[in-house]
Amino acid sequence: MLREEECITLAHGSGGQAMQQLIEQYFVAAFDNAELALMEDQAQLPLASLNGAGDRLSFATDSFVVDPLEFPGGDIGKLAVCGTVNDVAMAGAIPRYLSCSFIIEEGLPLATLERIVASMARTAREAGVQIVTGDTKVVHRGACDKLFINTSGIGVVPGDRQLGARHIQPEDRVIVSGTVGDHGAAILQARGELALSGELQSDCQPLNGLVEAMLAAGPVRALRDATRGGVAAVANEMASVAQVSIELEEAALPLHPEVRGVSEILGLDPLLMANEGKLIAVVPPQHCDAILAAMQAHPAGREAAVIGTVAAAPAGQVSVVGLFGGSRLLPMPVGEQLPRIC
Amino acid sequence: MLREEECITLAHGSGGQAMQQLIEQYFVAAFDNAELALMEDQAQLPLASLNGAGDRLSFATDSFVVDPLEFPGGDIGKLAVCGTVNDVAMAGAIPRYLSCSFIIEEGLPLATLERIVASMARTAREAGVQIVTGDTKVVHRGACDKLFINTSGIGVVPGDRQLGARHIQPEDRVIVSGTVGDHGAAILQARGELALSGELQSDCQPLNGLVEAMLAAGPVRALRDATRGGVAAVANEMASVAQVSIELEEAALPLHPEVRGVSEILGLDPLLMANEGKLIAVVPPQHCDAILAAMQAHPAGREAAVIGTVAAAPAGQVSVVGLFGGSRLLPMPVGEQLPRIC
Repeated sequence: MLREEECITLAHGSGGQAMQQLIEQYFVAAFDNAELALMEDQAQLPLASLNGAGDRLSFATDSFVVDPLEFPGGDIGKLAVCGTVNDVAMAGAIPRYLSCSFIIEEGLPLATLERIVASMARTAREAGVQIVTGDTKVVHRGACDKLFINTSGIGVVPGDRQLGARHIQPEDRVIVSGTVGDHGAAILQARGELALSGELQSDCQPLNGLVEAMLAAGPVRALRDATRGGVAAVANEMASVAQVSIELEEAALPLHPEVRGVSEILGLDPLLMANEGKLIAVVPPQHCDAILAAMQAHPAGREAAVIGTVAAAPAGQVSVVGLFGGSRLLPMPVGEQLPRIC
Repeated sequence: MLREEECITLAHGSGGQAMQQLIEQYFVAAFDNAELALMEDQAQLPLASLNGAGDRLSFATDSFVVDPLEFPGGDIGKLAVCGTVNDVAMAGAIPRYLSCSFIIEEGLPLATLERIVASMARTAREAGVQIVTGDTKVVHRGACDKLFINTSGIGVVPGDRQLGARHIQPEDRVIVSGTVGDHGAAILQARGELALSGELQSDCQPLNGLVEAMLAAGPVRALRDATRGGVAAVANEMASVAQVSIELEEAALPLHPEVRGVSEILGLDPLLMANEGKLIAVVPPQHCDAILAAMQAHPAGREAAVIGTVAAAPAGQVSVVGLFGGSRLLPMPVGEQLPRIC
């Protein structure tokens, strides 16, 4: 049983001594870099690598409200680092700096916060980014559910990299970097909504290393991580922006047997289920083999597979060839399969 | 009475069609810039002005949980833009780009969201910044209180600007840019916790224009906006970092009569009350008059006043000479005077 002083109190959000101590003892200690240690309200970054005439900044933000805070394969902290690192990496940018902002419900055990912050620090090291500035708010019991985290991120896009759905062309190939639906299924199981005893693990991981390996192997038209809305949302966004047709093959889709089981039992479509460590790449056909091989040689892409092709028409439409050869439309998902998935 | 379809639903956070429509109709329309309109998960920024060898990026983040969402003088959206713009400006940086992330409780009226987003757009225009990327999460009723907003911001610090509390020296003067405690008092009244009928207004405003006017008038050692923890927290942080003593004069402190009344009735110290559009500047004595005059000539600094001086010892200590000449210590605030003030 934790004593009251081992939980977050409103004083930890006050701007005064208690907040300073929380920041020093938990955040500055874990995230360990000179810029954060200055305890200013902002960080100053040299960005010396932003030196080519065409180099650009990539800037992304994501708030995380996942329930539960901790689940097999990850936690809200790991998710918050991976989510923003991946958004930046999908632009072909090299992620460099993150901000981190906590909204904490009064009463959260400090031990929980400490584990989550340690997980953020570990994931940031793995991804090669620094958490350089932050903010902490504490709200009354009941005004938020335990803990929400926002991360924003800055990366540098080398001038010679121009990725984007608008570059997609007919005949291009669609690659997924591994099994789909793992994160969504793991969260469902962690909520106790499944009676399955399988080994469902979230795929939550940084993808910037994989992206670098891919770009070294050949030109990539567009990248997108398949988070909320899954592969279906990404494919529809790409088809709509590029005004092309994308045809996916269900039989080619990498799927863990447990995820297949969950989706069959619950009637969920794995193409709509959330991932937190998988990307969809569209690549020119003549470079597909080289890029796929580079992905399969990387720990984050071992199960990468070609899952579809691009055609000129019908523009803006995504279809799936099913396991028995029939073709069906895969529209943009309308509602929410699983709230608070990330 | 609003119909159900005029409120936020979980589908608005799904990553699917409903979320796309919300983003297009509300956020992209209001924030109106080419980068956001691309609807990518990140923005790409040229930062052409980052061209001097010593130029640096300033990067800040802040989450806003203020209750109520709308109050005299502002709302959570205006606050979210001003807060991050001001954090960046306090580094002597020229704020350029903001991200914006919403955590919305299911059931929030879309009309409320629309007003708040319009207020953000207006404030961003006033501050000369663009909101270039964003994120939206929707949680079940009861999992958050109506609406939280995170903004993160990027600015450029010209290479010849080196501001920071570490530059503060004995004999320097301490200036406040106007009346203190207005935001804290306005929030208290907006919550109906005061029976006063006065005209309390939050001072919520961007300060980057004022900062430029000040830097044009003379060298500034350090700037900090006096938000949570008020003037007391800022003065203590500065004294601690620079290892100097700061002596404030209570009689010199600009105060609206209504705020003086509220603080006397409730026993609140205006030096601890939150501001959202006031800064503390420490300046060399020989430049004090010129900088003060420049502030008073700017709409955001009309009531600027010199409120204290810096001395060598006792290092790290802040004291206040009271209205009747007695001196007392002003320690770092420990707890929270008013939760969810910002």
